[in-house]
Amino acid sequence: MLAAGSYHCLDDFFLARIASAAVIDPPQPAGQPALIGLAEARAAQQRIHPRVHRTPTLSATTLGELFGVRLQLKAELFQRTGSFKPRGVFNKLLTLPAADLERGLVSLSAGNHAAALAYGATALGSHATIVMPATALATKVAATRAYRGEVVLTADDLLDVCQQIQHERNLVLVHPFDDPMVIAGQATVGLELLEDLAELDAVLVPVGGGGLISGIAAVVKAERPQVTVIGVEPVGANAMTRSLAQGSPVRLDRLDTIADGLAAPFAGAHTLRHVQAFVDEMVMVEDQAIADALRLIMQRCKLAAEPSGAAGIAALLSGAVELPAGARVLAVISGGNADPAVLKRLL
Amino acid sequence: MLAAGSYHCLDDFFLARIASAAVIDPPQPAGQPALIGLAEARAAQQRIHPRVHRTPTLSATTLGELFGVRLQLKAELFQRTGSFKPRGVFNKLLTLPAADLERGLVSLSAGNHAAALAYGATALGSHATIVMPATALATKVAATRAYRGEVVLTADDLLDVCQQIQHERNLVLVHPFDDPMVIAGQATVGLELLEDLAELDAVLVPVGGGGLISGIAAVVKAERPQVTVIGVEPVGANAMTRSLAQGSPVRLDRLDTIADGLAAPFAGAHTLRHVQAFVDEMVMVEDQAIADALRLIMQRCKLAAEPSGAAGIAALLSGAVELPAGARVLAVISGGNADPAVLKRLL
Repeated sequence: MLAAGSYHCLDDFFLARIASAAVIDPPQPAGQPALIGLAEARAAQQRIHPRVHRTPTLSATTLGELFGVRLQLKAELFQRTGSFKPRGVFNKLLTLPAADLERGLVSLSAGNHAAALAYGATALGSHATIVMPATALATKVAATRAYRGEVVLTADDLLDVCQQIQHERNLVLVHPFDDPMVIAGQATVGLELLEDLAELDAVLVPVGGGGLISGIAAVVKAERPQVTVIGVEPVGANAMTRSLAQGSPVRLDRLDTIADGLAAPFAGAHTLRHVQAFVDEMVMVEDQAIADALRLIMQRCKLAAEPSGAAGIAALLSGAVELPAGARVLAVISGGNADPAVLKRLL
Repeated sequence: MLAAGSYHCLDDFFLARIASAAVIDPPQPAGQPALIGLAEARAAQQRIHPRVHRTPTLSATTLGELFGVRLQLKAELFQRTGSFKPRGVFNKLLTLPAADLERGLVSLSAGNHAAALAYGATALGSHATIVMPATALATKVAATRAYRGEVVLTADDLLDVCQQIQHERNLVLVHPFDDPMVIAGQATVGLELLEDLAELDAVLVPVGGGGLISGIAAVVKAERPQVTVIGVEPVGANAMTRSLAQGSPVRLDRLDTIADGLAAPFAGAHTLRHVQAFVDEMVMVEDQAIADALRLIMQRCKLAAEPSGAAGIAALLSGAVELPAGARVLAVISGGNADPAVLKRLL
């Protein structure tokens, strides 16, 4: 099932594992980063499966009836550390040379990638420093520290501070989304949902930096191109929608959403390329719809999602996505690390 | 695997299905109601499986580590109507003569049995009237009505009002817990958890009227007598603990707990007999421990349990139950119909 052309070939990835990190992301023609495909997703699955949960797909009949569709939920909030992020982190870390793990890792994140990287680094005997915004949720900072990550809080530009620390301490950057190995790790969500659902018409995926939808869409379009893949962004954090419109990664001046996990200040070159290639539609939702969806998911499905994880249902609820009656729809509930104080306010 | 002596034999149940309701619960020597066993549980499973969910068992590694045990959760909050109750309801209703379903059903409940009976009655073309306390949670009353149950709210004694309506309208009583067919339906939870867990040391079960623990304990002790079965009651609703001490069903004057689903004002003759025969230990938990457990289940396991469903974890948290380090423990998360207002207060 390995497609030709723009896909990496499997051997590249095996090589990358034993050679240097530079092999993983070879120079590409400007504006055309490599696309991952089934081979990379399957290699990632082989690599990470002892380290991550194979999360269940749950039927949500009553909730689906509200929207006239047959609804399934991919319960990625049950993943280790409470979000899908460890999939990409482990796929990246397990393909780094041992010397890189010894040097130590650095990244930037508002929360879920921070916790996942700290968890992954500790599990593999490495060490992670994560630059987090001063406004990060206290619970996400605490989780990152609990997994023995070193947290640097800053009010300055995250990427600037991250790169400064990277160079000062000679650390290896593990990007939260814009890395083919991270995308291939997230693509394992796509492999699992296709395994679980023989019949499927549409997939709804929350979009922050775009790593999750890039991986899922690459796998879904390779296996079942007739399935519609729809990305959902908050109105107040719509970097991917704007990047698509502009044709290149956009940097947002301002982020305004309760879905902290989707508040990526920019889309990546790799993720934009995957979204351009594989995603059928991007839609936007207001915070009010996200809050309403969160309550519905809790009351009808008994799942404690975080606001970001509710974006797909918010798209159905608000009418941002309209699907034919009876359509078989899967929404990815991407995480469950809701801050208790935020939850208290939203309920 | 059908035991002799006090167990029903399978044929009794087939007979019951085609004959009259009286066959289901034949007269017993005073104080010695029949015990259900594997045969009744398996017959129930055959009968109800197209009507109920086969719920998953989820590992809860991080939460278990807090207590030094290997913890699994039986996610019965994912059951239809949001609690385990439809198992017993369907097993009862599917063994009633058609004429009884036509007459209509009546029961008493603070909530989860009410919703389950309304759901089951509607699904089978019958009709249910449910007497609920005036203090019942608005969400549980609304759910019962949404499943097309007729709700009678009363400040008087529930059983009195229920029996009055039963006789006035010539309805069939479907007891919320004290009925061998209801107990056999709940016993299917026990069959499933044993299927899922080849290795198991202890099971923690929330106890209200005792239907759930009666069924689970009967199955567990028949299949793996070495597994410890522990029941958990709120301090403010401890009818089973007191009934055990007294040796006969006790009626409580006063109920005081946030776990509305466990606030049964009395233990039943059938359930007490099952608890006496099969349960190793009953423990009690304070509301504070239930609230703390609820938060932990939400934060660590991403499950939106109701307070009753958190009782097993509350027992671990409070030290009411102490198990050897590394013990393989399953806690039944019995329901997820938390009232948003209550949840908001508890978070």
